[in-house]
Amino acid sequence: MIDLRSDTVTRPTPGMRQAIAHAEVGDDVYGDDPTTRGLEEEVAQLLGKEAAIFTTSGIMANQLALGVQTRPGDEVIVGEGAHVFSNEGAAGAALSNVQFAVTGVGRDGFLTADEVEAAIKPVANWFPRTSLVWIENTINRAGGRVFPQADVRAIADRIAPHGLALHLDGARIWNASAATQVSVTELAAPFDTVSVCFSKGLGAPVGSALAGPAARIKEARRLRHRWGGGMRQSGIIAAGARYALAHHRARLVEDHANARRFAEQLLAQGLPGLSVNLAGVETNIVNIDLDTPAAPVSLAARELGLLINASAPRRLRAVTHLDVTSAQIDEAVTLLARAVHACRTHRSA
Amino acid sequence: MIDLRSDTVTRPTPGMRQAIAHAEVGDDVYGDDPTTRGLEEEVAQLLGKEAAIFTTSGIMANQLALGVQTRPGDEVIVGEGAHVFSNEGAAGAALSNVQFAVTGVGRDGFLTADEVEAAIKPVANWFPRTSLVWIENTINRAGGRVFPQADVRAIADRIAPHGLALHLDGARIWNASAATQVSVTELAAPFDTVSVCFSKGLGAPVGSALAGPAARIKEARRLRHRWGGGMRQSGIIAAGARYALAHHRARLVEDHANARRFAEQLLAQGLPGLSVNLAGVETNIVNIDLDTPAAPVSLAARELGLLINASAPRRLRAVTHLDVTSAQIDEAVTLLARAVHACRTHRSA
Amino acid sequence: MIDLRSDTVTRPTPGMRQAIAHAEVGDDVYGDDPTTRGLEEEVAQLLGKEAAIFTTSGIMANQLALGVQTRPGDEVIVGEGAHVFSNEGAAGAALSNVQFAVTGVGRDGFLTADEVEAAIKPVANWFPRTSLVWIENTINRAGGRVFPQADVRAIADRIAPHGLALHLDGARIWNASAATQVSVTELAAPFDTVSVCFSKGLGAPVGSALAGPAARIKEARRLRHRWGGGMRQSGIIAAGARYALAHHRARLVEDHANARRFAEQLLAQGLPGLSVNLAGVETNIVNIDLDTPAAPVSLAARELGLLINASAPRRLRAVTHLDVTSAQIDEAVTLLARAVHACRTHRSA
Amino acid sequence: MIDLRSDTVTRPTPGMRQAIAHAEVGDDVYGDDPTTRGLEEEVAQLLGKEAAIFTTSGIMANQLALGVQTRPGDEVIVGEGAHVFSNEGAAGAALSNVQFAVTGVGRDGFLTADEVEAAIKPVANWFPRTSLVWIENTINRAGGRVFPQADVRAIADRIAPHGLALHLDGARIWNASAATQVSVTELAAPFDTVSVCFSKGLGAPVGSALAGPAARIKEARRLRHRWGGGMRQSGIIAAGARYALAHHRARLVEDHANARRFAEQLLAQGLPGLSVNLAGVETNIVNIDLDTPAAPVSLAARELGLLINASAPRRLRAVTHLDVTSAQIDEAVTLLARAVHACRTHRSA
Repeated sequence: MIDLRSDTVTRPTPGMRQAIAHAEVGDDVYGDDPTTRGLEEEVAQLLGKEAAIFTTSGIMANQLALGVQTRPGDEVIVGEGAHVFSNEGAAGAALSNVQFAVTGVGRDGFLTADEVEAAIKPVANWFPRTSLVWIENTINRAGGRVFPQADVRAIADRIAPHGLALHLDGARIWNASAATQVSVTELAAPFDTVSVCFSKGLGAPVGSALAGPAARIKEARRLRHRWGGGMRQSGIIAAGARYALAHHRARLVEDHANARRFAEQLLAQGLPGLSVNLAGVETNIVNIDLDTPAAPVSLAARELGLLINASAPRRLRAVTHLDVTSAQIDEAVTLLARAVHACRTHRSA
Repeated sequence: MIDLRSDTVTRPTPGMRQAIAHAEVGDDVYGDDPTTRGLEEEVAQLLGKEAAIFTTSGIMANQLALGVQTRPGDEVIVGEGAHVFSNEGAAGAALSNVQFAVTGVGRDGFLTADEVEAAIKPVANWFPRTSLVWIENTINRAGGRVFPQADVRAIADRIAPHGLALHLDGARIWNASAATQVSVTELAAPFDTVSVCFSKGLGAPVGSALAGPAARIKEARRLRHRWGGGMRQSGIIAAGARYALAHHRARLVEDHANARRFAEQLLAQGLPGLSVNLAGVETNIVNIDLDTPAAPVSLAARELGLLINASAPRRLRAVTHLDVTSAQIDEAVTLLARAVHACRTHRSA
Repeated sequence: MIDLRSDTVTRPTPGMRQAIAHAEVGDDVYGDDPTTRGLEEEVAQLLGKEAAIFTTSGIMANQLALGVQTRPGDEVIVGEGAHVFSNEGAAGAALSNVQFAVTGVGRDGFLTADEVEAAIKPVANWFPRTSLVWIENTINRAGGRVFPQADVRAIADRIAPHGLALHLDGARIWNASAATQVSVTELAAPFDTVSVCFSKGLGAPVGSALAGPAARIKEARRLRHRWGGGMRQSGIIAAGARYALAHHRARLVEDHANARRFAEQLLAQGLPGLSVNLAGVETNIVNIDLDTPAAPVSLAARELGLLINASAPRRLRAVTHLDVTSAQIDEAVTLLARAVHACRTHRSA
Repeated sequence: MIDLRSDTVTRPTPGMRQAIAHAEVGDDVYGDDPTTRGLEEEVAQLLGKEAAIFTTSGIMANQLALGVQTRPGDEVIVGEGAHVFSNEGAAGAALSNVQFAVTGVGRDGFLTADEVEAAIKPVANWFPRTSLVWIENTINRAGGRVFPQADVRAIADRIAPHGLALHLDGARIWNASAATQVSVTELAAPFDTVSVCFSKGLGAPVGSALAGPAARIKEARRLRHRWGGGMRQSGIIAAGARYALAHHRARLVEDHANARRFAEQLLAQGLPGLSVNLAGVETNIVNIDLDTPAAPVSLAARELGLLINASAPRRLRAVTHLDVTSAQIDEAVTLLARAVHACRTHRSA
């Protein structure tokens, strides 16, 4: 099976398994796990923040960011299709009692300073209190496109007088950095807090982190424990994340090349009713728009040996990663073309 | 002062004050208040539901509807600008841990069955569970326009197979009924639960209600008590609501006529940069769009003796009610014209 | 019927009804209700605090105190049987996400500085954060006994270095003051926030208040609105509370005398298996302990024309108030004696 | 260092590390991780339940049990010192909005059917709704004592007519089973849900599980994802848990023997002001009561090379586990005796 469902599906490499098997560990609830502590320090430094905290999922890292930067009843400004709003089971409402002002509707997750400022609620007892602005980079909904750093800086400048905090959901910040050749430190600089993921493009089995001011991260430790995210010998999985950070960042450009190769070859098939915005393929995600329902195509592809998700009623999403070679990309194009064809034949029958 | 800020600003009439002064009361926490019980029965019957519960605010009635028809982590489909999302301090997240899928963006709160169905989330652990669809009638954001009953029925039919509940925020259902000459019973029929308000157009000092199935209303009593909404001799205020229901419904058409009069006369002034969608003035609200900031106009009007709110950066909202006569409407037009003029002069100076 | 269930059952007097009927009102959501504002100022001054907020229930006043002085995940130290823990539908967990450390078990709600200090949790990620100490005066569970002011001061002194806040649930502070002849200002002095009730001994139909620092009360206004406790022309009910405050405080000593008269006469009946701790009858509540189940006695008394609640499996609670005369007290004793006798006869049959 | 702080401090053995390094994995969010699925099936079968879910912590397993068996505003009956109440950062209030009725105060976590039944709240809008009874086995607070299975069955029988659910916090059920030679299946039988831990006595680096009815576990998957507990290639840590289950259960009797050895030798030292209830040492925990503060003794021991926690102001808690040999136990006795002596000398100086 060729698996293009997500870059989360990667399996640990032999080297990573060795690192995991030999990890130095201790009881992290007591602060005794050297591998976890080391990872947290490394991440904090990389992102230019005072401190960082390791988590078992990107959702927990994101939710901690909400938890330490909002109060119940607050409102958070997000772009359309933000993972924190659309794909986290309403956790913001459940864990931190906040609601989201989805802003820039129709713009696939991009946001401008003007849009953000217009979304800030006036002060009144009947309005939620706007306290946080939330940006994704790369933007999942937009097919892995990079959020322009100039826009980030403009937003940061604009909200500063309003006293709002700024968070980066940088689950794929590694891809944004690889694509732009701007360091993650620089990408992260305008933000108060940044969440990153080790189990997407970097290929670790489990793990994310939240970085930010020391006081916020200290509070996040309390929340993480309360939410059941505290672990004992967490070095076992932190070791995988450290290995991923050391060995798999440089190779992300290969995933990006594969994504472009996939998009270009797919377009070259001239399949009827299928389109890809080639200019939007900036990193490792390809959004494929269809003029028919996507779910049957996904099912047909699965039967042919290709796993690819329908991310919207008429959209497929392909994600490249370290477990997909360029040869497999070529094969995936063939299989997808066949699946599309089969579905059209079936429909016209 | 002429007060067009909201129909909530009305003061009790002498007759209503008499009704309040002579209300028969008991301890409602023990179920002993006959005036409150009577009101609840009356409302249930009027709306064609099994039971109803009295509350001190429309927010509490709305939040009870959320509380008894969702579980934490659920998602509620609402139209743009819905009061429950925009004007209730993120209470849905705080009290019931739900989030809102704002749907039909750009359509001022109207919703179609297609839009609603498209907003229902697929079943997955990472998606919120869609459990409730929420409609406002009349629609506050749309300037008091009536939600078409045919659309309500189409939505009800469409969501039935999905097992979703349907709620009507009928804070101004009395206006919708007065404007369409369709009974509130019929307007309420497709809904599982309906919230109504006595302190807007009807002119009671305090009070709203939620009607629905007996089991839901029983659970709502528990929630109301937990949220601090249980009262002792609540008949004192329920009496005002009963009086309003009996004496102030028929006269709502006067408010509607006044709103139209206000809109027409205002347009007749030919004020530069000011527009009103006259076709949209269906009940007692007039949205006035400006090509300049609304807040200064609101302030200038206040100094001239007219209270009118800015409901958006470039929009004023005027609401007619039983404390505004048609003569005052004429005067309000003059005052507002003067305020608009003053601001334009000031800006060009 | 003679109603000794609670001092909440009182009905407004003619004078109070007049005050209500003529109340000057406005839209309190806009801050325009002079009667409500006046009451809030009066209460703040009486309790020696910067500000106060009016609520429709004691539960809401208590919950606001929790809401503005804790963060989610905090722990609140309370005495046994505290209303906020036992009788508010787990609202502390639901609205503010806090838990209670019930302290001084077996001591009927009394607390010492030593007990309080021992209940403060050490700082660790796995412990809740202790942030508030909660005292009731008079103590409901203890049969309306007065919480010794010397103990209050000792607790306040002891917790100060720990940075904990101190709240008084003074629903019956008026009784404590009447019984001790210590002013409510003095009783309230050691506390950060104080909640009081107008619809218990004072006899208003509806209403409570929370007093405290201006910043806390401002935040409480936000929470009150979010929880559905904001009202429009709230002066209608605030007028009843103001009247009660002006006219019904001095007469509380009559209720206390009636409670003692009831307890003494009841003991004088020499009923087998019935006991009253006469020394504990300090205000308007009498706890009556039985050696048999209390519920049947409550039911039997109801049939004879006396309403009296079972407050525990083998305890009845009688509460005196302005709707019970001393003649009715005498009759209540006779009726209760008959009910007790009837139940014993029935049991031995 | 000899570490008797907790049985959570164990490090993976070489065999376990091998199992981890070679774990077969997949993306568990998509249900594709065979090692995790295998562990869940194994645990369900072992506990005699329909299904099980893997979690990264005992807190998350416990909180999921609360989340799927209560509604906001419910009350849960627990014994004194229950981990879910005392050591989980008020998560029950924060995540599920429930409060705890701590029952059997003074009895160290034991509960009888009579105590439980007396703690069930009557049905009223002002009372929380009792929905769940929570038992720990072994009981942490009681020094690892076994909860008598006859009492469990009596409680299960008593609450059945009330419709309450029954949960077992079986973090150390493996110890209870080893000590009593009753199978975990039998110990778990009376319970609706059971949480177990792999990272305490069993020695896995990370991991717990919740078992129960399939519908509850399905709902728990949704909650786990929402709370950030979903993982990708979780087989890496599930492999450690499976290894622990297969290889470390039989050896728990050694830990129990070591605990007894430690307690007996400690008593044999005849240290002044130190006592151990030898009869209470049933598994791998020893509570050591002092007549002086425990914290300085803990500190002094640490300097001598022994880690041992103060679990109460005048109590130390020693826990044996697979990283402590009987030789180290002997040395620990010597070190602790020295620490106690040092502190007494210091105090009398």
